[in-house]
Formats: sequence, structure tokens, C-alpha cells
Amino acid sequence: MSTNHTRPTVTVLGLGPMGRALAGAFVDAGVRTTVWNRTPGRDAALVARGALSAATAEEAVAASELTVVCVVNYDASDAVLRRAEVAAALKGRAVVNLTADSPDRARSTAAWAAEHGVAYLDGAIMTPAPSIGTPEAVFIHSGPADLYERYAPVLALLGGTHTHLGEEIGRAAGFDIALLDIFWTAMAGYVHALALAKAEGISGRELAPFAQGIGAILPPLFAEFAEDFDSGSYSGAINPLTSGVSTMAHVVHTAESHGIESGVMRAAEGLVRRTIALGHGEDGVSRLAEVLGRRH
Amino acid sequence: MSTNHTRPTVTVLGLGPMGRALAGAFVDAGVRTTVWNRTPGRDAALVARGALSAATAEEAVAASELTVVCVVNYDASDAVLRRAEVAAALKGRAVVNLTADSPDRARSTAAWAAEHGVAYLDGAIMTPAPSIGTPEAVFIHSGPADLYERYAPVLALLGGTHTHLGEEIGRAAGFDIALLDIFWTAMAGYVHALALAKAEGISGRELAPFAQGIGAILPPLFAEFAEDFDSGSYSGAINPLTSGVSTMAHVVHTAESHGIESGVMRAAEGLVRRTIALGHGEDGVSRLAEVLGRRH
Repeated sequence: MSTNHTRPTVTVLGLGPMGRALAGAFVDAGVRTTVWNRTPGRDAALVARGALSAATAEEAVAASELTVVCVVNYDASDAVLRRAEVAAALKGRAVVNLTADSPDRARSTAAWAAEHGVAYLDGAIMTPAPSIGTPEAVFIHSGPADLYERYAPVLALLGGTHTHLGEEIGRAAGFDIALLDIFWTAMAGYVHALALAKAEGISGRELAPFAQGIGAILPPLFAEFAEDFDSGSYSGAINPLTSGVSTMAHVVHTAESHGIESGVMRAAEGLVRRTIALGHGEDGVSRLAEVLGRRH
Repeated sequence: MSTNHTRPTVTVLGLGPMGRALAGAFVDAGVRTTVWNRTPGRDAALVARGALSAATAEEAVAASELTVVCVVNYDASDAVLRRAEVAAALKGRAVVNLTADSPDRARSTAAWAAEHGVAYLDGAIMTPAPSIGTPEAVFIHSGPADLYERYAPVLALLGGTHTHLGEEIGRAAGFDIALLDIFWTAMAGYVHALALAKAEGISGRELAPFAQGIGAILPPLFAEFAEDFDSGSYSGAINPLTSGVSTMAHVVHTAESHGIESGVMRAAEGLVRRTIALGHGEDGVSRLAEVLGRRH
């Protein structure tokens, strides 16, 4: 089963923008790549580059020792993998599921895979499709370490950095979900800021350089607040919650005075006000994570 | 009124962490600095470094050609400045108000200042107190250009970069509010992610390096989405809203399965679902800003 002494063979299930990027990177790396998509007609460009087209999912997975799955979510992934014909074809082979979903879904499908003699790794891709095949791509993986080590050389052909986060199969999805939480919440803040700025006569192009400055101060704060959270110090010396909540109220007031719905900031402000009401007004931002995580 | 041919004189009203940092930077730069705070006893360390203590706000503003105000919000700032004794002492002098609040409050106080013969600039500080006096500090200003040019050399003594955003007095506050919107929403996302990660057995220290990776991809996306918003292109080629909303649902599901309140992400998801329902599911993130800004 070593992938090092022969030309590796990989099947890619799912040919959305990310699946096409994955398959394309394998083709470019000289991998014998078989592709399949539930909706036909997505593989023409890949086949022109040398990929092999499969008529069915079972034919596709039978063509390779390793199948990489990248579809919209685990409902879609299970609908493909858990068919009897596909399960039979996968027996004794390996799956790396790069589909994004929640940790419990990865655990459920790993249990199904174990019952059916399928070697199973879960993973997630933290960067957009154009990063695939470049040093910018970021992949995280979890599952049996020996399995990861066996397929790491093939996965490395996708470019970027690959990190094995541990044997517990839900771990990659846990990181993925937490990171997507940060990403999408930040995006929700940014689009609200763009709308608010426009209402104040400020264009996106005028705001963007300053927004980039805010973006640049986030990474060191992320590290600092993680330490505060893990250690339980919740330091508010520089930026106490009482000062933050005043700012948040200004944002809501200004946006709503322009008729801009502000549910995201209202929810954030509510969390800060509850935390202050619990007696933590002089603590810092990391206290909010502790309050969110309390069992009630 | 030139500040270049004589030793400048500055009064700082408000001695919270930021006000103390501002006054300290003026003292360190050799400015004759007078300080005052509503609650007494905050000026001892500054006076030991050479600042002059004033017993009342009117005495403080009378001691200098320029008064810099930095208090918790404009309610506090107005309570100090708009007293008859203070207004009388300020007549013919200048105020730079670095207090954070909404643009309408800056406009209101500027109107008051004009009625009382007080030269008035509004500004905001985009970086935390420890940045003051260092190259990292970021200040934005708005108001009459000639007034800004007159005091720019004194303000430069606070370190960092200073940008005059225009003559309309509410402009600095408009930028400030939009940038704080980004900052606090991102923080709300991060603390939620820390709580979610912990519930999945992932510590802050384990999550932080990947969170920093997410932080690093935000600035280029901010520039890209600003262009999309200004141009009305709302491109969703790489990351359509239909794909984002699926991710957001995974975050809510996973967090709530651990009993973690998810109002911020629920509000963000609601915005995306409304935007998709309006027929914009294949558009990108910038479409959300357009929908938020619509007049209903």
C-alpha cells in the first residue's frame, strides 16, 4: 500500500471549485487521477488535462488506492459514500474526506468506514480554491497517525502546508469549524462596516486601507487572548469590557440611525452586557469566551 | 497661533489609560502639558514627570493654546466642555477631541464650538494606549484643513501616523465607528471560536496559530470586497454565499450542541439567508453590504 514506489493513483469525488482545484493539482503532479461528480459535465477541462472520467462513484473509487472527497457537506458526502456499491468498492482502500462539516459528522462517517473496512481520514482546507497547488494552501488532518503518514506524500502534492492534528477523527473538523467561526463573523463585521461607512459618505476604497490596519492588529491579539483564556487570567488592563461595550453601542446607534440592521453587533453587545452583569466588566475580551463556555 | 516658533502648550482633559498615554507623550516631547481629570488623583505620575496639574477644567483649558480631550464618550466630553466657565476659557483657543463616539455627536459639539468661538477638530485613535508615542499609533482627524495644518506638528508629537480625512467634522468618527465595527465583531467571533474549540478539546494555544492564519488572509479580502462593493460587481466566483451559509450552519450546530449560545453567528447566518432569499445566492460576501445598506 505504500504510495512511494509506484505512481500514485487518486480518485477525486466532487468537482465544485475546490474539487476541481484538488484534481487539477494531482494531475499537474503526475498522479493518475480519476474524477467523478454527481452532476455530470464538470470534468471536461480536467479530462483534457489528463484526468480519467468515471461514469459512477463506484467505478471512480475502484480506480485508485486513495479517494479524496470534497463536496458541499457530509449529507452530500454520505449520500455518495454510503451506497452499498460504493462501500463494496472502497473495502480495503482509503478515503481522505476534505468535505467541511461538523466534528460529529466526521465521527459518524468514520464509524461507518470502520464497519465497512475502509481506511478513513478527515481533513479540512483552510484556504480558497486558487491556493491549491501553491505554497499558500493550508490543510489540516485528523485520524490514525499511520494512515496519515502513509498518504502524506500524496497529499503533499496538493501543495501548501499539511498538519496532522491528532488521531481523534473529529479534530480537523473542530479546528475547521472554530476557524470558520472567526472568518465568517469577521466577514459579517466587515460588510456591516462597509454599509455603515457608505451611509456616512465613506467609500469602500477609502475605508479599506484602515480596515487592513485593523486586520493587521488581530493576529497578535488572537495569541494574547488565547493565553488569557487558557490561563484564566482574562486580563482587561488595556481594553476592559466596560470600554468595549460603549464602543459597540456607538456602532449600533450610528448604523441604526441610517436604517442599517445591526443584529450581529446587537448580539455581540448583548454578550458583553451579560458578561458585565455577571461582574466581569473590568476583565478583558477573553472573559467572553469563558462565559460563552459555561454550562448553565 | 503658530506652534512652531515657541514651545507648544497643550492641555489634556481625561486621564484614563489613553488620556494618560497622550499626556505622557506630550511631556516626553517637551511640551508644557497641563492635565485634568474629572475624578481627582489620576495625575500624580504625570506631574512627577513634569506635567502641570489643574484644579478645574476651566483652569486647565486656560493654561494652553490647544486642548486635547479624551474621555469615555461625548456625553462625558460635553459635560466637561459645555459648561459656561469652560466655554468662556476656551474662546479663541482650539480643541482636538479624540473621544470616541458617533459622527452625529462630533457634528453637534462642532456646532456648539462654532457658536462659542472655539476652533474644533475631531479625531480618533485606532490603536491601544501602549502604542501612543510609538510608530505603531494610528490617528485619524477631520475638520477644517487650516486648523488641522496648524496643529499637525503638535499632534505629531504623539507619534505614529496622522491622517486628515476631510473637512466634514463627522468623518473621523465615521471611519472610527466603521473600524470598531470590524474590530469588535471579529473579537466576538474569536471568543466564540475559543469557547467552541475548548468544548471540542482544543485549547486556545492550539487554535491560536491557525486563527492567526485566518487573521492574515483578512486584509487582502478587505481590499477585494471593498472594490466589489464600490463597483457593484459582488463577485461570488470563489466564495458564493450559498457555500458560506452552509458553513455558518455548521458553526451554529456544533456550538449549540455544546450549549454555547451563538447569537452572533445566528444573526450573521440570518443576514446571509435573507440575501440568498432575495436572489443573490451566487454573489459574494460584498453583496451582504449592499443588502444591509438598502433603504426599505
